[in-house]
This record gives sequence, C-alpha cells and structure tokens, in this order.
Amino acid sequence: WHRESVGGVACVRRIWIFDNFIDAFRFAGRVAELAEKYNHHPQLTVSWGELAVAWWSHDAGGVTQADLEMVALCDHLST
Amino acid sequence: WHRESVGGVACVRRIWIFDNFIDAFRFAGRVAELAEKYNHHPQLTVSWGELAVAWWSHDAGGVTQADLEMVALCDHLST
Repeated sequence: WHRESVGGVACVRRIWIFDNFIDAFRFAGRVAELAEKYNHHPQLTVSWGELAVAWWSHDAGGVTQADLEMVALCDHLST
Repeated sequence: WHRESVGGVACVRRIWIFDNFIDAFRFAGRVAELAEKYNHHPQLTVSWGELAVAWWSHDAGGVTQADLEMVALCDHLST
C-alpha cells in the first residue's frame, strides 16, 4: 500500500496483478463484498490483469483509521 | 462518451451515476461480461455511486473501431 493522491485527495492505494481481466474483476468483487459488509467503500479500478484499490474517507478528506482497517481486511483476502 | 486521456493514452470514457456502491459495481459486472464475450477489455473504475468505463486498444495505443463497437454495446446495456 502506498500513500497517493486521487483527484487531489490523499488515499492509500495498492495494485494486485492477475493473469487476465476476469480474475482481476472477481477479486474486485471480493473487495466490494467487504466494502458492503463494513459500509465503507473504496475506489476499485479494474483493467486487464490488474486491480487497483484506493481507500480514503470522504467526510475527512483523507485517510482515517477506518481506511487502515479496510486495508488490513483486503490484505487478508489476498493471502 | 468523451475522448480523454488515461495515463497519456487516448480513450473514450463515460461515467454512469448510481444511488450506491453496489449498483455501480453490478453494472460494472455487466460491462465485464460484455468484455469477456468480445475479448476486448475496458478500464472500469467503481466508486460510491459511480462507474467510469474507459475503452482503448493497447496494440494501437489509442481508440479503434473495436472500442467504438464496445461503446455501442455498453449504451445498449444502460437503456
């Protein structure tokens, strides 16, 4: 995970690499399920063989503890 | 659809607005199905209440007829 800026807002962002589009999309679906469960939603960018996940808190205008908790949950998904 | 640049590459891009995250993600799934069917894949960016779809052709380094065909198919989805 790297601290980055998406549209001028600070976020934490990680990229996962896959062998094709649909595997990237399926993993995005697992992140989306987590997001719904915890009612905190990322930006998911799926392209061929790649998923980028970015977390930030709209109300805070940047990265909060809630985002870091989602980061940890995502890392559990990927192992 | 607007002609834009994603990472320096010309693309055609459209944004759909939804009432929540999961509806945006579900619509992304329908675009992903089309992409698999035609073996031509977009960049899909899902965030809360919004899906951005961008098409370009890697091999051509820009927008081709194949992209415009996918644009038309996406428009059929959304109606």
